[in-house]
Amino acid sequence: MNLLADFDAVRGAAPDKLRKVNLFETPRFFCDVYVLGPGQSQAAHVHAGSDKIYAVLSGRGRVRVGDDVHEVRAGHAVCCPAGASHGVENPGADELRLLVFMAPHPKAPA
Amino acid sequence: MNLLADFDAVRGAAPDKLRKVNLFETPRFFCDVYVLGPGQSQAAHVHAGSDKIYAVLSGRGRVRVGDDVHEVRAGHAVCCPAGASHGVENPGADELRLLVFMAPHPKAPA
Repeated sequence: MNLLADFDAVRGAAPDKLRKVNLFETPRFFCDVYVLGPGQSQAAHVHAGSDKIYAVLSGRGRVRVGDDVHEVRAGHAVCCPAGASHGVENPGADELRLLVFMAPHPKAPA
Repeated sequence: MNLLADFDAVRGAAPDKLRKVNLFETPRFFCDVYVLGPGQSQAAHVHAGSDKIYAVLSGRGRVRVGDDVHEVRAGHAVCCPAGASHGVENPGADELRLLVFMAPHPKAPA
């Protein structure tokens, strides 16, 4: 694994769905960049034993954690604790880019 | 714990040493913002069982991981695997701000 990554260079949404680019992963965590075009979303879901952070790099988003909805923009981070339903959508006109951390890795690499 | 944090608002170095502001922590991870003024550093150290990421929000830095030195700027992330000596310094003239993620939490909260 390359220990240096350029997340600023990860730009450009996929046409059909949320784009995920992995930066790092170990048995203990993963770190991805997600890029969501206008109108794209990640449906609400649960990780029973892992916490996730969405840290907004650019754009605007709407993050759901349990029954709460957070309107977020660049410079906001949201913690989604293990067991809490969570998801994110891009209601804006610009690309939404997120730095995403999850620990422990739900599907740990060998 | 507040599940929404504004890391963009964390600015301003401490006069005497690296400033750390915790955003989130669980038994599984912590997420901090570090602010280093010009010339400030975090001395090289090791976490035997935890991985760390330094993600540069603004400024320029020099991150050491084992025997490697990475010159980094905003948009770069460096992974410091468990067991690897690592540290960071601010050799620049501007504030260096880092989003720092560690998993698992080395001193897990109750």
